[in-house]
Amino acid sequence: MLKLKPVTGMRDIMPEEMVVRDWCVSKIKETYSKYGFTPIDTPSVESYENLHSKEGGDNEKLIFGILKRGEKLKLEEAKCEADVSDSGLRYDLTVPLVRYYSCHKEELPSPFKALQIGNVWRADRPQKGRFRQFTQCDIDILGDPTDLAETELILATSEALCNLGFKGFAVRINDRRLLRATALWAGFSEEDLEQVFIILDKMDKAGEDSIPDMIEGAGYDRAAAEKWMSLYGEAKVSEDPVGLINEKIGEYREGCGIDELKEIMGCVNAVKDDRYDLVFDLSLVRGMSYYTGTVFEISMPEYGGSCGGGGRYDEMVNRFSGQSVPACGFSIGFERIIMLLMDRGFKIPDEKKKEAWLIEKGTSPEKLSEIMKEAAKLRTEGRTVLTTAMKKNRKFQKEQLANSGYEEIRELFRDK
Amino acid sequence: MLKLKPVTGMRDIMPEEMVVRDWCVSKIKETYSKYGFTPIDTPSVESYENLHSKEGGDNEKLIFGILKRGEKLKLEEAKCEADVSDSGLRYDLTVPLVRYYSCHKEELPSPFKALQIGNVWRADRPQKGRFRQFTQCDIDILGDPTDLAETELILATSEALCNLGFKGFAVRINDRRLLRATALWAGFSEEDLEQVFIILDKMDKAGEDSIPDMIEGAGYDRAAAEKWMSLYGEAKVSEDPVGLINEKIGEYREGCGIDELKEIMGCVNAVKDDRYDLVFDLSLVRGMSYYTGTVFEISMPEYGGSCGGGGRYDEMVNRFSGQSVPACGFSIGFERIIMLLMDRGFKIPDEKKKEAWLIEKGTSPEKLSEIMKEAAKLRTEGRTVLTTAMKKNRKFQKEQLANSGYEEIRELFRDK
Repeated sequence: MLKLKPVTGMRDIMPEEMVVRDWCVSKIKETYSKYGFTPIDTPSVESYENLHSKEGGDNEKLIFGILKRGEKLKLEEAKCEADVSDSGLRYDLTVPLVRYYSCHKEELPSPFKALQIGNVWRADRPQKGRFRQFTQCDIDILGDPTDLAETELILATSEALCNLGFKGFAVRINDRRLLRATALWAGFSEEDLEQVFIILDKMDKAGEDSIPDMIEGAGYDRAAAEKWMSLYGEAKVSEDPVGLINEKIGEYREGCGIDELKEIMGCVNAVKDDRYDLVFDLSLVRGMSYYTGTVFEISMPEYGGSCGGGGRYDEMVNRFSGQSVPACGFSIGFERIIMLLMDRGFKIPDEKKKEAWLIEKGTSPEKLSEIMKEAAKLRTEGRTVLTTAMKKNRKFQKEQLANSGYEEIRELFRDK
Repeated sequence: MLKLKPVTGMRDIMPEEMVVRDWCVSKIKETYSKYGFTPIDTPSVESYENLHSKEGGDNEKLIFGILKRGEKLKLEEAKCEADVSDSGLRYDLTVPLVRYYSCHKEELPSPFKALQIGNVWRADRPQKGRFRQFTQCDIDILGDPTDLAETELILATSEALCNLGFKGFAVRINDRRLLRATALWAGFSEEDLEQVFIILDKMDKAGEDSIPDMIEGAGYDRAAAEKWMSLYGEAKVSEDPVGLINEKIGEYREGCGIDELKEIMGCVNAVKDDRYDLVFDLSLVRGMSYYTGTVFEISMPEYGGSCGGGGRYDEMVNRFSGQSVPACGFSIGFERIIMLLMDRGFKIPDEKKKEAWLIEKGTSPEKLSEIMKEAAKLRTEGRTVLTTAMKKNRKFQKEQLANSGYEEIRELFRDK
């Protein structure tokens, strides 16, 4: 007998959600295509080496390994996972993109503007709203060292969210180099930075006031934490936070991206309308260690967490292929977007009226042909016509169809 | 260092192909949705038990197993694959669909008309045009025992192919029960049928004349083979092949689907136009053992092999869940369709003109904002405007962009 439920942590998509997902994918593709992003696809499976390259951070602990096959699988000699597995399911779209770009660089335009929408897999502990298979939706620009890349990514991603019906959201922006500079200025020592940033990253949930305690509790410099928090507080209420920090941190400002930040924010603010805000946020860290410059994140008022994020990762292509290629990407939190839309009972705009025809069993071949001809004609005209066998329990069948969005239902009996 | 190539047997999709794939998916979805097929999705991963349920035939030998994780993985005690793997990648969309339907039956309309487009994985020996990850595109009707299901599947699938620009193809149809009946009538014994059908299935490639030799060589009845081939030959040139077989096979005709075949063909022929043909073909077998009635297959004149197929599989839901539900499906050979389109240099119809703006490094923030505003305005009007950093080798960059379909290229210098 069949196991009826999906495997642990993964889920079936029901028709009403799938229609919304398809609509979102098509809106997103339409938007990004106008910006010149070209769709690509990479295999769901990547080599063991690439997946364990250290670029994935904690995600590398969550890889679904794929079993070696045939003669390669020597169970009796196997000591560890790597003995029985030489590939696995991708946990993100960034590592495959960097492999793709490195492999096909000669055939691709430069800068290369890529759009990838695809599934990724992580063996996370199953919990509400978090699944082991989920869709990611990334745009990336490879080969552009200028802040035009950031500007484009922010404009395009925000536009895509607006086209999905979202507004009033904030794109938060920071620069890892500026974050570093302010932390050093505040008195943290170089070697503590990584751990300090992990704590700062929790500010959203833990609250600003608890940061100095948390930093001290973890064994780092409380005075530095308080100095940094006071700068953060001042910047937060300033009309020109980047300018304020620029003045405060003195010689630490060198090469920390202040000019770029100003340019990006200036340009985005000049182009964007009031459906969303671009906000500088010195406390924005973004988890992944591969970021080298700007980082961004989308905050939706109706949803506490992040609905997307990204940043610049100029060193990853080099670490992978030995060729230095600047890179920058922005990812929409596709599953969260879908969850928000489903929660608010989203209906696809301008959806056409659908009709269902119930055909009684025993209808003569001649009459059936007439019915099907008429249906075909209406479909050619763009209408949706479901022709289906009439069930014994017509009342229930009609209710089900009404629930599936069929506004008009015709009953076609065999003898009429 | 990164492994630059995709894992063995899988492939990266380049932008020019991806655009065609996206266009096809959207055309197919649009067509099927007019027929009332609803999109669904199932996880790429299925349980070991479901994948090894015997419904997959030879595909079960090609499963990519997924390694158990954490404490569940006991390598030192492992004797066989099942000890180290409790799930794997799906090798088709039919087994997951039957699981899905069995799991969610109460929430789904009946009959349920499902559309699934998704990747499947098979560890086939890599060869030209055959990959270990590929996209399948299936429609299925569950819960309709009448031949309205077949009629709908054939009309919808053919329409989808026509909407992709194909014409002059043939939908071949047969009924497994009729094939059985004619084989028994010809003198084959019940227990030889499965093997005999495997040989008949090779007629396309081996040629009709070699069938009796092949059957005799495999140890089966040559006289029966000759008798069957003579019936096949007569039917092939008859104007009413089904009627002819009906007359010939006498009492063997009972319950072998002749009336249904006539009805399906009558109705499809009445509705369809001349862009494709529906052809009865007594030699059509279709590989999978789960088919219980009608089988169909698409032949394209420009491509020797099959470009799609399907049939009725009324017993599979029952074998899986103990509930008897009639089922019937039709699958488009998505990868072959794409290959045919790419080979003929297919261009997406009515594609809008695309323009690219090259922006010189050092352009002032004010000017950059003006440029981006203008681009945003044009995009709102529906135009595709790629804004990108100007490279040092402008000539090469412009060539690359022209190759990517950018007809108009503007060069925006910083001092103009």
